[in-house]
Amino acid sequence: MSKRVKPRLYKGTRDFLPEQMVKRQFVIEKIRRTFECFGFEPLETPSLELWETLAGKYGEEADRLTYRFVDRGGREVGLRYDLTVPLSRVVALYPQIPKPFKRYQIQPVWRADKPQKGRFREFYQCDVDIVGSPSVLADAEIIAVLYASLSALGFQKYRIRINSRKILAGIAQVSGAGRENELAMCRAIDKLDKIGLEGVRRELQEIPLEAKVVEAILAILDVTGNNEQRLEAVAKALKNSEIGSQGVNEMRDLFTYLQTYEIPEQHLQFDLYLSRGLDYYTGPIFETVVDEPKIGSITGGGRYDNLIGLFTGQPQPATGSSIGLERIVTVMEELGMFPPNLKTPVQVLVTVFDADTLHYSIQIANLLRRQGLHVDLYTGKSGLRGQIGLANDKGIPLVIIAGPDEMKARAANLKNMIEGTQETVPQEQLSERVKVLLQAIQKV
Amino acid sequence: MSKRVKPRLYKGTRDFLPEQMVKRQFVIEKIRRTFECFGFEPLETPSLELWETLAGKYGEEADRLTYRFVDRGGREVGLRYDLTVPLSRVVALYPQIPKPFKRYQIQPVWRADKPQKGRFREFYQCDVDIVGSPSVLADAEIIAVLYASLSALGFQKYRIRINSRKILAGIAQVSGAGRENELAMCRAIDKLDKIGLEGVRRELQEIPLEAKVVEAILAILDVTGNNEQRLEAVAKALKNSEIGSQGVNEMRDLFTYLQTYEIPEQHLQFDLYLSRGLDYYTGPIFETVVDEPKIGSITGGGRYDNLIGLFTGQPQPATGSSIGLERIVTVMEELGMFPPNLKTPVQVLVTVFDADTLHYSIQIANLLRRQGLHVDLYTGKSGLRGQIGLANDKGIPLVIIAGPDEMKARAANLKNMIEGTQETVPQEQLSERVKVLLQAIQKV
Repeated sequence: MSKRVKPRLYKGTRDFLPEQMVKRQFVIEKIRRTFECFGFEPLETPSLELWETLAGKYGEEADRLTYRFVDRGGREVGLRYDLTVPLSRVVALYPQIPKPFKRYQIQPVWRADKPQKGRFREFYQCDVDIVGSPSVLADAEIIAVLYASLSALGFQKYRIRINSRKILAGIAQVSGAGRENELAMCRAIDKLDKIGLEGVRRELQEIPLEAKVVEAILAILDVTGNNEQRLEAVAKALKNSEIGSQGVNEMRDLFTYLQTYEIPEQHLQFDLYLSRGLDYYTGPIFETVVDEPKIGSITGGGRYDNLIGLFTGQPQPATGSSIGLERIVTVMEELGMFPPNLKTPVQVLVTVFDADTLHYSIQIANLLRRQGLHVDLYTGKSGLRGQIGLANDKGIPLVIIAGPDEMKARAANLKNMIEGTQETVPQEQLSERVKVLLQAIQKV
Repeated sequence: MSKRVKPRLYKGTRDFLPEQMVKRQFVIEKIRRTFECFGFEPLETPSLELWETLAGKYGEEADRLTYRFVDRGGREVGLRYDLTVPLSRVVALYPQIPKPFKRYQIQPVWRADKPQKGRFREFYQCDVDIVGSPSVLADAEIIAVLYASLSALGFQKYRIRINSRKILAGIAQVSGAGRENELAMCRAIDKLDKIGLEGVRRELQEIPLEAKVVEAILAILDVTGNNEQRLEAVAKALKNSEIGSQGVNEMRDLFTYLQTYEIPEQHLQFDLYLSRGLDYYTGPIFETVVDEPKIGSITGGGRYDNLIGLFTGQPQPATGSSIGLERIVTVMEELGMFPPNLKTPVQVLVTVFDADTLHYSIQIANLLRRQGLHVDLYTGKSGLRGQIGLANDKGIPLVIIAGPDEMKARAANLKNMIEGTQETVPQEQLSERVKVLLQAIQKV
């Protein structure tokens, strides 16, 4: 074995110690359950993909940020950059998968990025996608499952911003910007939050677009009223654009469906300034922003009808969204949305008094574990005081002490670390009593 | 975007489609719950570690089989080879973690190995370890949680083979092989299953060891009787070896504890031929073999008191075991141990009759999803027949049809795909009826 090594993390990566893990598992569990409630099926793909699979799917920037290397057999491989390209490869590789294919996938992805506060080189994505349906109903299902997930997690103040690439294409068309300037136009108006309306005007001029065109674009964007009124104003402005009108009609259907899903209107915002970064979107696009704290979007997605065709050679419509686990956890921490006492999965520490009573302690742990309770049995060398200190440090709410007297009486001393109370309980009533105390503690 | 690419997997990796995922999640869920019942806390570490962290911890072979590359900043990094070295780094990096630290970790690991049947380059390990306790009670906890995990999964015919590196050291000592030949001796006797007793004799001679020494080793190994009798025979043979006697005493304690844990004797086998490959074990070692099918060990582990010291510079006792997810799933498939109808998490498909009834279908899906049921709403373009075919292909047990007549009557047609039956159910009784049918189906 090698000599002593200073323990260090690779920059941009993190360890998740139990206290963080318990929170992450809480979030993942809620999200997974909601995904399954909506009929999405689980999928996992390997971390390592052939470079040819990943290359050129998201643009140059992403290629540069993808971890890649040559393996011992001379093959070029990379670590997956997201979960959408692997999904596309899967759909192409297994044509027998019944369509529409509704899958969810919760796995880490890697970006060879400069690590910054809140930006990591390895992080989890939680994706839901529907492959094989061109219907707006599929987009509605995605937005509905996002709404249900955020509700399950207790989110209250947020907006799902919704727009359509087809509407943006229509705006480029009727304003005179032209299809060739469509992406540049999208990137400019996407910056409203950062640079304000004057900034957007400047960016549009610098594309370059004529002043007349810029004012035409800004006039269309400057719609007011509720979602329906804004949509009707845009419909009017785009009536001479075929793609724009198609986008408007899809939006009308989408908002009608979302009403039937009973998603409160305050969470849905038809937002012409939303354009999403990735090139591959083709229809409705959506992302979620929370009002507090300022953290960027916590979900992002849309319809991408051409990506899968890159693998299959045949068009295959698809729509979906990614939920950013890291940002969700951050927001929930900052807003105090996690249940109290969420520090460890351990519910009870069974202490060990001495060598003579050790077997009695094992028996008590057996008893409680058989009831499905989460029981730590102390295996260290500290005395009782140290053992109780361990429970305190870890946030374990209940401690059981079984010394010679308790063993003789076939009982145990049950200590409530949250309330600071203590009682002697006969062995046969122990697991019931533990369950009662745990319920009370979780209610605090 | 780039041109069309033929979809291919990187060799030695796998996609897990929904049907496999459902089985894997079934196994992971049982294991995770059992780990938490035993008071183990969750931990996750990054896939990418600095090469200096991984290098030289398992021997040359493992170094060669570790994926490594240089990142854009010139740092040498590697993909983790197992979950034990990352744990050791974590323990060293966060000295504030209360000890004993009982953690579980379920994550993939990577080996740049030649892919073969049943051997992969990316696969999951499920680890439980206790760091900070030199006590045999900690080893007993590990074996007890393995037993409980295997029981939860329904395993019945298996043996947890148990030995001690200290006993093997004692055998090397009293036989005259000497400590310098101890590892070579271990490797030779570990091959009993493959090469038989004569093979082991030959291997021992080739170390080289004198014939007298070889016969002395084989005489000690050739113990008979039950666990207790074999242990007493070894105790007698090793009475002049301090380390051997210490190992025997620990084994006695271990088997006494395991009795208190109420683990049936048939699952525990004191087995002198067990020696485990890795160099870093220092005390009790254990692995689990199933009688059918022949697949090698499904768990493996032991005490490793020196590994963590490589990072901390201070001794830190540790013991633990890894459960091999892939082999567990393979065995359970071959023995038909999975529950029936474990093909998809989806319980109900709500079909869409036509555009006029679509909103009614959404309402029905809403209703059932609010009850926590797993409901797929059809978003594709097929007619009813195609939709029912989809449910059949995916193994969805129940289908709901709501055409104009049903909508008018505020009811739905509920089709049981397993039994081939069908009934009309009023909307307000639908979720209750679905629950009843699902329960009956799972009983089949």
